[in-house]
Amino acid sequence: MNQIIIKNISIGDELLIGQVINTNAAWLGEQLSAAGFQLDSALTIGDSEKAILEAFNGCMDADLVLVTGGLGPTADDITKPTVCKFFETELAFCQEAYDNIVALFNRRGFQMSERNRGQAFLPKSCIYVPNNYGTAPCMWLEKDGVVFVFMPGVPFEMKGIFSDELLPRFTKRFHSVPYEKRVVMTTGIGESFLADKIKDWETALPNFLSLAYLPQYGMVRLRLSGRHEDADLLHQTLDTEIAKLKALVPEYIFSMEDQPIERVVFNLLINKGKTFATAESCTGGNLAHVFTLIPGSSEVFKGTAVTYATPMKTKVLGVPSTTIETYGVVSQQVVEGMAKGVRDLMEADFGVATTGVAGPGGGSAQTPVGTVWIAVASPKGLTSKCFNFGKDRENVINRATVAAFEMLRETLLLM
Amino acid sequence: MNQIIIKNISIGDELLIGQVINTNAAWLGEQLSAAGFQLDSALTIGDSEKAILEAFNGCMDADLVLVTGGLGPTADDITKPTVCKFFETELAFCQEAYDNIVALFNRRGFQMSERNRGQAFLPKSCIYVPNNYGTAPCMWLEKDGVVFVFMPGVPFEMKGIFSDELLPRFTKRFHSVPYEKRVVMTTGIGESFLADKIKDWETALPNFLSLAYLPQYGMVRLRLSGRHEDADLLHQTLDTEIAKLKALVPEYIFSMEDQPIERVVFNLLINKGKTFATAESCTGGNLAHVFTLIPGSSEVFKGTAVTYATPMKTKVLGVPSTTIETYGVVSQQVVEGMAKGVRDLMEADFGVATTGVAGPGGGSAQTPVGTVWIAVASPKGLTSKCFNFGKDRENVINRATVAAFEMLRETLLLM
Repeated sequence: MNQIIIKNISIGDELLIGQVINTNAAWLGEQLSAAGFQLDSALTIGDSEKAILEAFNGCMDADLVLVTGGLGPTADDITKPTVCKFFETELAFCQEAYDNIVALFNRRGFQMSERNRGQAFLPKSCIYVPNNYGTAPCMWLEKDGVVFVFMPGVPFEMKGIFSDELLPRFTKRFHSVPYEKRVVMTTGIGESFLADKIKDWETALPNFLSLAYLPQYGMVRLRLSGRHEDADLLHQTLDTEIAKLKALVPEYIFSMEDQPIERVVFNLLINKGKTFATAESCTGGNLAHVFTLIPGSSEVFKGTAVTYATPMKTKVLGVPSTTIETYGVVSQQVVEGMAKGVRDLMEADFGVATTGVAGPGGGSAQTPVGTVWIAVASPKGLTSKCFNFGKDRENVINRATVAAFEMLRETLLLM
Repeated sequence: MNQIIIKNISIGDELLIGQVINTNAAWLGEQLSAAGFQLDSALTIGDSEKAILEAFNGCMDADLVLVTGGLGPTADDITKPTVCKFFETELAFCQEAYDNIVALFNRRGFQMSERNRGQAFLPKSCIYVPNNYGTAPCMWLEKDGVVFVFMPGVPFEMKGIFSDELLPRFTKRFHSVPYEKRVVMTTGIGESFLADKIKDWETALPNFLSLAYLPQYGMVRLRLSGRHEDADLLHQTLDTEIAKLKALVPEYIFSMEDQPIERVVFNLLINKGKTFATAESCTGGNLAHVFTLIPGSSEVFKGTAVTYATPMKTKVLGVPSTTIETYGVVSQQVVEGMAKGVRDLMEADFGVATTGVAGPGGGSAQTPVGTVWIAVASPKGLTSKCFNFGKDRENVINRATVAAFEMLRETLLLM
């Protein structure tokens, strides 16, 4: 049996003028994949009858159409009449929907408005699907064998209805094919070089598996995924192929799970009972920031000295001013002094330091914009490396952050 | 003249399985609106010839089609041949594209791979648009009067090319209806309370203007925008209405321009020739991070001490350990000691400090999760305030960051 065709339509002017980023489509895609379905397309349109009718007509080759948005108390003036037009029906009072709205207002202790009462008028031919999360109705309609489901656009309501009510109905009604994915996180190698190294393996993959490269700030996420009626075979094949991949490029893989590098470092530190601190110049506190977003990071993170002003590298971190004068602020000698200095100052097991030129100003022929020195001080000594991360300030900061955590990870693995 | 019809197509399986959220469509919508255009729809499809051809055919009623994604060194195996098929052309070597890739690799000091060379093969009939941000090409093709522009999917590359190269070409080629927007930045008041205060003004707005509330981390951005063929009338009406708004809620407005609070603080510091430093506990370096994203921030920012481990508050910042024992780490006495300590340590004019419980752990009955003390030390003395920013860790960190910069701004205005 073939996969059914599923399309998503998001309705809302706010999505098209960039006021709100559409996160519903990605969430639906993820949920559908995990349940053995596949989202084929996601279309965003504005609140207009013409656009809505065109979009509906464009979905008549699908089996299932998931529509989100256009049903709030101020937005449904256009959507609901248009739905009636398309399904050749009319609005009628729905007692079940009304009771749901009343119950919701009672629970929240708010007064109900006339506008909210209007939300209980639904297309006559629809099946009403309960919404326990808000006043907007969820509606199920069919036309020429195509199922259209209308959900509110508010993510938290949409997610609740989808999981509680809709997905169980979909799995009963439609055929699904088991899906599984694995993610391998790499760093230190560009997308195209990585692709070259694993080309033969990729070419030889069974045709029900596919590989995707997802590059981001000095990392490449590799996603190997597939669908197969035989879930066990799928699982075992993924095991085998992932093991082969791991053997091909072990030096670039920092995680066999879908997690950022700072999380890998956090887990290593927790397991080894070690602490670290950072001394940051060009990264301006970003190492500290991304690490402290992790709940519980205080267990292994001692602190940071952002020494943006040059004299602070001497005063706070103890890098001799003669070293700075002799070698320059962006140099191996200074970054090593910073790493060692912050390790001592913060009484940590590891000190990580960055100094560089994030740009757009401050570059020179010898030290162009994008140059970053990174060092790690450990109980066993010092490691340092020089990088060039290009011209964009934010990009330099983010890539230097990833590279610094990778150096700390490598150091931790040797301990 | 009517508005032209603009459609966006995003290509990428990763968008449909929910691994990556499509932020490009919203960004394009915002930029197009600002330039007097309007995005009519945004469609996301997977990496398949069938889906791509269907999507292209569905856009033949548009004037301009903006395609993003499907052009990286490993993804273009499907997109480019499909583009050739649709435009009835074939791939050919493009010297300009090749030179651009070579230049990029030289700048970064990397070796070029055969795969990157392959990126220089483009549809023969396309106009090559330079990409200064990466190796993927940007291509301009036309069919039956419809302009198709292909951009890389990586947001930072797409944004660069769109702003530098494409938008200027669009404004030359297509008719736009004058659009203007004003943004007023507020803080210290919730969205619904703000809406109540300005209700009468909002109701009386001329019908070609519309107001949007864009709340984000302790701020509400108010956007007043409109389109009108008479650009002068539009401009004058906006002047008048914005002046009325300013008079209604002066105490909550921190900027009459669309800029984050740290940028307002940066400008004030530059104008007054003053410097600052931060001592961060619960914000974990985020004040330093957001501030140092600003190019030139080194002129006014001395540095930061992230003292996550409690003893570091004493050792690095000089907060007496007896103060910490007596009042607790999250207290007025400690935050004021930190602010004063970092001002002295970093030899800055102002010291800003935060200490709090970002959660999810670490809360108590007396100091629940979300409690944050913030202090500013200035040449004239100390100011401190206590806040509660709710339960979500990232939210607490971001809201505390905004509140800290607002306190520094208020202090700077009194100097």
